[in-house]
Amino acid sequence: MLPMPHITLNSEEPGIRGLLRYRPETGRPISELAEVLLRGPSTLTRGERELIAAQVSALNECRYCTASHAATAAAQLPGGMDLVEQVRADAASAPISAKLQALLAIAAAVQRSGRDVTDDLVAQARAAGATDLEIHDAVLIAAAFCMMNRYVDGLATIAPADPAVYAAGAQRLIRQGYVPPSAESRP
Amino acid sequence: MLPMPHITLNSEEPGIRGLLRYRPETGRPISELAEVLLRGPSTLTRGERELIAAQVSALNECRYCTASHAATAAAQLPGGMDLVEQVRADAASAPISAKLQALLAIAAAVQRSGRDVTDDLVAQARAAGATDLEIHDAVLIAAAFCMMNRYVDGLATIAPADPAVYAAGAQRLIRQGYVPPSAESRP
Repeated sequence: MLPMPHITLNSEEPGIRGLLRYRPETGRPISELAEVLLRGPSTLTRGERELIAAQVSALNECRYCTASHAATAAAQLPGGMDLVEQVRADAASAPISAKLQALLAIAAAVQRSGRDVTDDLVAQARAAGATDLEIHDAVLIAAAFCMMNRYVDGLATIAPADPAVYAAGAQRLIRQGYVPPSAESRP
Repeated sequence: MLPMPHITLNSEEPGIRGLLRYRPETGRPISELAEVLLRGPSTLTRGERELIAAQVSALNECRYCTASHAATAAAQLPGGMDLVEQVRADAASAPISAKLQALLAIAAAVQRSGRDVTDDLVAQARAAGATDLEIHDAVLIAAAFCMMNRYVDGLATIAPADPAVYAAGAQRLIRQGYVPPSAESRP
């Protein structure tokens, strides 16, 4: 038997895309939050922010979000998918800035519990040059993906197996962003 | 030493309120999501939805969100704070509908991991009369509070000790909703 979502959706779109279309009243603010956090004006690059999203999704073992944000990070980072894989295997030894390493450590703490973000973790990020706003955004990106991952898996949405689907999705996201054109909304 | 948030906020507002004000670009979609999920048109009452939010916040041990949403649930449920406490102690024996019990069981699974929402949990909710949209919203409320709780605690925001603060906040929320009047936005 093919896997099926827990509820009957109104499209065959996989992962969160099917959910955003099913309930546009909640889909719109969720998409807007993703757009501001991952693509809005920031001193963190879009690739760096997608890497945080991919890393948290991997820790939550969310197949769809991990593949989707790993592809989007890879397409926007000079190191490509090799770098994304290195970070996933061992962020502390990956060839990324000390600041990004410290922000990834904060994100990993948030994935477990907000109360796991210690003064030490924050001091390390600050010593590596992170600003208050970068620390804020790393915490909120990690927290937001603890929502997205649970939403996607809690309703048992479909995660395609073919990596080409995620690579194509990454190109579409890079071109169009997270807020879908109004034609995609439910009439 | 008084507890202090991990970053310097631009107000003394406690909990998530200080964060929504600090970063209105993300605050706006977060507030809009809460408004649709907890107060928008639904076949679940506002009290029932706040109860799900309070329960997930308690499981995440987020002091501010638990106190805030317990107070808001209590103010909108016939059983008041006694009922909220009974649900927190043992949801399965609390005097609430079988449908709400099944949705709370789904929310508790989501709090652990989206992958913990089993076909059985969904079948039980459906047998108790839950619709697809109610199941969707229970999953998304629980997932959203896994974000809110981590956001609030991950930045070590202040949680006032006085229950009167939360009771007053509940009355303000019931009056004004989650989307703050524009005067509260950063200019």
